[in-house]
Amino acid sequence: MNKPVIAITMGDPAGVGPEICLRALNHAPTQEICTPVVFGDATVLKQCAKKLGLHAGFPILDGDDLADVARAEVPSIMDVTGLDHVRFQPGHVDANTGAAAFAYINRAIDAALGEHVAAVTTAPINKEALAMAGIAYPGHTEMFADRAGSDRWCMMQYSEEITCTFVTVHVGYAEVPKFLTTARVLEVIELSAENLERIRGHKPKVVVCGLNPHAGEHGLFGDREEERIIIPAIDAARKKGIEVEGPLPPDTAFLPWKRKATDVFVCMYHDQGHIPVKALAFDSAVNTTLGLPIIRTSVDHGTALDIAWQGKADTGSLYSAIRLAVKLAAK
Amino acid sequence: MNKPVIAITMGDPAGVGPEICLRALNHAPTQEICTPVVFGDATVLKQCAKKLGLHAGFPILDGDDLADVARAEVPSIMDVTGLDHVRFQPGHVDANTGAAAFAYINRAIDAALGEHVAAVTTAPINKEALAMAGIAYPGHTEMFADRAGSDRWCMMQYSEEITCTFVTVHVGYAEVPKFLTTARVLEVIELSAENLERIRGHKPKVVVCGLNPHAGEHGLFGDREEERIIIPAIDAARKKGIEVEGPLPPDTAFLPWKRKATDVFVCMYHDQGHIPVKALAFDSAVNTTLGLPIIRTSVDHGTALDIAWQGKADTGSLYSAIRLAVKLAAK
Repeated sequence: MNKPVIAITMGDPAGVGPEICLRALNHAPTQEICTPVVFGDATVLKQCAKKLGLHAGFPILDGDDLADVARAEVPSIMDVTGLDHVRFQPGHVDANTGAAAFAYINRAIDAALGEHVAAVTTAPINKEALAMAGIAYPGHTEMFADRAGSDRWCMMQYSEEITCTFVTVHVGYAEVPKFLTTARVLEVIELSAENLERIRGHKPKVVVCGLNPHAGEHGLFGDREEERIIIPAIDAARKKGIEVEGPLPPDTAFLPWKRKATDVFVCMYHDQGHIPVKALAFDSAVNTTLGLPIIRTSVDHGTALDIAWQGKADTGSLYSAIRLAVKLAAK
Repeated sequence: MNKPVIAITMGDPAGVGPEICLRALNHAPTQEICTPVVFGDATVLKQCAKKLGLHAGFPILDGDDLADVARAEVPSIMDVTGLDHVRFQPGHVDANTGAAAFAYINRAIDAALGEHVAAVTTAPINKEALAMAGIAYPGHTEMFADRAGSDRWCMMQYSEEITCTFVTVHVGYAEVPKFLTTARVLEVIELSAENLERIRGHKPKVVVCGLNPHAGEHGLFGDREEERIIIPAIDAARKKGIEVEGPLPPDTAFLPWKRKATDVFVCMYHDQGHIPVKALAFDSAVNTTLGLPIIRTSVDHGTALDIAWQGKADTGSLYSAIRLAVKLAAK
């Protein structure tokens, strides 16, 4: 039986990405379930390995022929050039590191679209570095959606403890209400139900959060977004046979007994779901994008520049992300 | 040594308030630290006690003379009339129950302002019932602030695990940004630092959350509310000697190691703090209002109409609220 090849993008070279990618290449349980291929900079990985005393003697694949990746049978490095090594300093992001991180992702997307890899798992990028490099994407999710030519997708934060999907993600607090429509809420409910059924193997229970404190308390707070936008989406989802409840007050939705009885929470905005996921499953949550032709999972943390290249990075989230990618790829 | 008299308002008669108040009157550890006097409806309490097989033989004080309350030495009931008992049905809120709940609170505030009680602990009210009764207050906090004639106050959710204070509370999601000013953020930082020092007995560490995802990531998301409004407040607080950090990304602010190192989180809006408090300290969090001349603590849950008068209500939050009231009253 062939193990799936999983592309792991190295993330921003200045952050914790190189360290956790090296650890993944060396990680026996990861090798048991897949063939990990890190898409990144071979020079940077060697430099990081030397600093931290990690093994780095992996085959280096030529960045030009992606078909080589599909043939990989041992942990490997797909060398993607572009970083200016003279200017590069671990712990310091700039246009140089941002552009390089973006190149690794694009190459991995090429490999996934060409079906040379079964899935992509991404190490953290730095949005400021991307912006300095003139790359306007707010995050991985939007890059993958754009390259995959998909306009029906949503972000999911997955863990055994709590799983959230998002109607909006990387938009400012004040802009959220204008992005909320019944069609979009329904789309995210449907994507959530479809994918959780695949992951869990049973018809999932979906909970939809309100937007306002206490879910608006029937119009006492807010602009009746619950009645105008969210409830019609829930009604439409029910008519399609989805087991869905809400809109619940966002603060009581995540009580322990409610979490146990719920497969996925549909959240209206970034922090509504990211706060409980990080508070409750900080070391095991996986970020993934639902609805794309490419399977893509990601770590749940940032570049952590303050501890980059110091041997202090936690690999739990990356290993969980690889496991979920393998699980989704097997279906 | 005289134990402090704590007024416990019965909350909405149709909710779980009568049951948990009866249990508090019967609770030996509560009697050891204070003399609890329930401000509510003696007829309702007897009816509830009968249904649930609870002891209800407590002295009934005449609602007219509040000085009697100060002399109470055993758990007692301050009978506040006003409920139409014929129309009343447990589990069903209406203008009748909303107006009655409001009357109990006002009588307790009278007692506190007259210094006949050391503090007030409130059982849950129902905001829809209040609205049906034509009472425009969105919650206890605003009622107490108004009666106490205070315009410098904030809500706090207190627990051993996590404590949050709030710059805004009961306003719709979309209205939050217009209530954020540097003066208000500074006021809440100061109230938080003052009160946590009293409770914890040491100079507290204060963390301030951002408004936008990732605290705006230096202007990438949002309208630079962090730079324009929050950072100037943090700078001003530091100049006053307060140990304060932020604005932190709201989702990583509540990671386990950050919670351990933080005495209080200053939150910009209701769900930013209520989500982690309820997810992490659902059965022990206490709601209190800082900055008022009256000490006031409250349960962290609602009227729970679906389990009202069924012997299923959890008393943990009420007991915690009474303990915190006694602690604050002793200083």
